Amino acid sequence: MVTFCAGGTGTPKLLSGAAEVFDPHEATVVGNTGDDVELGGHLVCPDLDTVLYERGGWLDTDTWWGVAGDTTQTHDELLALADAAGVEAEPRYLPDERQTAGREIARWRRFSAVGEFMHIGDRDRAVHLTRTSLLDEGHTLTEATRTLADAFDLDVDLLPMSDDPVATIVHTASGPMHFQEFWVGRGGEPAIESVEFRGADGDDPSDTALTGAAPTDAVLDALTAPVVIGPSNPITSIGPMLALDGVREALESTTVVAVSPFVEDTVFSGPADDLMAAEGYEPSTAGVAAAYPFADGFVLDDADGTDLDRPVVRTDTEMDDEADAARVAAAVNEALEAAR
Amino acid sequence: MVTFCAGGTGTPKLLSGAAEVFDPHEATVVGNTGDDVELGGHLVCPDLDTVLYERGGWLDTDTWWGVAGDTTQTHDELLALADAAGVEAEPRYLPDERQTAGREIARWRRFSAVGEFMHIGDRDRAVHLTRTSLLDEGHTLTEATRTLADAFDLDVDLLPMSDDPVATIVHTASGPMHFQEFWVGRGGEPAIESVEFRGADGDDPSDTALTGAAPTDAVLDALTAPVVIGPSNPITSIGPMLALDGVREALESTTVVAVSPFVEDTVFSGPADDLMAAEGYEPSTAGVAAAYPFADGFVLDDADGTDLDRPVVRTDTEMDDEADAARVAAAVNEALEAAR
Repeated sequence: MVTFCAGGTGTPKLLSGAAEVFDPHEATVVGNTGDDVELGGHLVCPDLDTVLYERGGWLDTDTWWGVAGDTTQTHDELLALADAAGVEAEPRYLPDERQTAGREIARWRRFSAVGEFMHIGDRDRAVHLTRTSLLDEGHTLTEATRTLADAFDLDVDLLPMSDDPVATIVHTASGPMHFQEFWVGRGGEPAIESVEFRGADGDDPSDTALTGAAPTDAVLDALTAPVVIGPSNPITSIGPMLALDGVREALESTTVVAVSPFVEDTVFSGPADDLMAAEGYEPSTAGVAAAYPFADGFVLDDADGTDLDRPVVRTDTEMDDEADAARVAAAVNEALEAAR
Repeated sequence: MVTFCAGGTGTPKLLSGAAEVFDPHEATVVGNTGDDVELGGHLVCPDLDTVLYERGGWLDTDTWWGVAGDTTQTHDELLALADAAGVEAEPRYLPDERQTAGREIARWRRFSAVGEFMHIGDRDRAVHLTRTSLLDEGHTLTEATRTLADAFDLDVDLLPMSDDPVATIVHTASGPMHFQEFWVGRGGEPAIESVEFRGADGDDPSDTALTGAAPTDAVLDALTAPVVIGPSNPITSIGPMLALDGVREALESTTVVAVSPFVEDTVFSGPADDLMAAEGYEPSTAGVAAAYPFADGFVLDDADGTDLDRPVVRTDTEMDDEADAARVAAAVNEALEAAR
C-alpha cells in the first residue's frame, strides 16, 4: 500500500506513469480540496477532478485540467449573456452572508456563474453537477467522490482530504481572495502577503467557525501507509492538508518521500515560488525540505545540487510523458526504501 | 397597455403573432412560476424561458420549450455518469430538510441533477445558471428576469408572477409530487387527486410557511391594464397566479379576456383536462369559464358552440404559425372591445 498526496498537476503527472512501480489497486490518492470553489452553485474540485480525469482517460494532458476535446457551449453562452446584459465578466464573489449559507462544504469560496470566470467544459460540468447533487442528496464529499470514481472505473482509491470546508484564501495588498480568484481570475496578481486555510487554521483562532477541519477517517487510515508527496505546490496543494488536525502527526509517524517541485530555486510550473516566499520559506528545494520537516527522503532533479539532511535520490524529474513519470516513480520507490 | 398571463405554450404562441394587434413595447407578460424547479442547484423557470426564448428568437418552435438547435453535452453526460455509477436516472427529489433550506425562491421543488430527469440543453443551462447566480448575488427573481430580458433584447416586459416561492404540487394515489415530476418525469401519471400551490394556498392553512405568496408590485400594477389570458392550462399555468394574494381581486377590477384552450371538451395540448377534472371543473370551455369568473369575454374556436353568459368572439383558435396567432390576437382585441 502507498498513499499519494496530490494537488492538481505534479502528483497526477507522477501517477500517470507510476503503475509499473506502485500497483494502482494498492494506491490511495488524497486530493487537496482547498482549491475547490462553488461556481454558480456547483462544487468544482479541480485537484480531485484532475486525478479522476487522468486515471479515467478523460484528461486534457496539454493543460492538465479539464476534459480532452470538451465543448464549452454553456460557458461560452454565460460569457455572451453577461456581455449582452452589460454585466462584468470577472470573479464575482457572492455576498458575505451567502458564504456561510447553503452547503457547508462550499463555505468561503462561493462565486456567481454570471460571466463564469473559470473555464468549465460541458462534460466537465456534468461531473460538477453530479458531485453537487450527490452532496445535496445527503452524501459526504468522500462518498460523492467514490460514486464518481466508480463511474470513471478508477484503479486508485481517490479520497478528498476532508469532508469539512477548507478554503485557501490568499491575502494580498488588494485584500483577501480565494486562491482561484487570485490564480485563474487575476493571473497570479497582486502580490501575496500570506495564505490562510480558512476552516482549518483560521486567522482568528478564537473563531471556531474558522478552525477544526479534520481529515476523514479514510484519510487518516491511508496516512498509516508510506506516503508520497509528488512535485506539488507545498503551500496551496499540500498546505491545506497539513493544516488539518492530525495530518502532520500522521506524517511524522509514517515514511514520507517528497519529490521537489523545484530544481534548486527554479520551479517547474505554477505560483509555488511566490507563495513559499510569502509564507516565509525559501522558494527552492531547501525551502520545500523546511516545509516538510516530517519527510524522510527526497527525490531531486539530477541538476539539483541542494544538500539536504535526509536521504536523497536523484533523477531527471521533468515529466512530459508516462515514461518520464515512470522514471520518477522508480526514484520515489528507491527513496522510500532508503528512508524506511 | 395590455397584460398577458402566460403559461408555457398557449400564451407564448399567441404572443408570437400578436405584434400587429398589441404593440409589444406596450405589453407586459406575467409568467407562471409554479412549474419552476431547482435542478442540480439551478432554478429552471420553464414558462418564463419560453417567453424569453420566443421573443428573443431562440425558441425551439417544434417543442415550444428549449433552445432551437441546442446541444446537450452536459445533459447526456449526466445520464452517462449516472448509468456508469449504477444510479437510477429518475426524478430524484432532494431530502425533505433540503426543500426548505437554501434559496427561498426554490422551496419544495428541489431535484438532484444525478441522471437529470429534465432535458436541459447547454445554452439553455447558461440561462438557468445566470438566473440562479443573479439570485445568489442578491437580486430578486423579478430583477434577474429583467437582466435576462435585457440580454435577450426583449420587446415585451416580462415579469415572474411572484418573488415568493410557489410550487405546483400534484397529489396522486402515489403521493404528492411536483408538477414537473408528474408531467416530465412520469409522463402525466398516476391519476391526479388534487392540485396544491404550495407557498400560496397550502393544504394546511395553519402553516403560514405554506401560504402568503404575493404577486409583486409590478404584477399588481400590470394587472390594472386590460388582461389577456391565452389558451393556457387554467389549473397549472394560470392557477398558481390566481392563488396569489390579491390577484383574483385585481382581475375582478379590470377587463379580462380569455382564450379557451378547449374546443368544447377537446383540449389542444397538455394535461389540462385531467387537472381540471381533479379540481372539480368540467374539462371543457364551460369549465374554463367557471374557473375564470372574473373574465369579461372569451375567444372560442369556430367549432366551439359552448353557450357562455359573457361576450364571445369566435375564430379558428388552432395556432400553428404566426399568421394563426395574429388571427387569434385580432379576435382577442375584438373581445376586449366587446367586454369593456
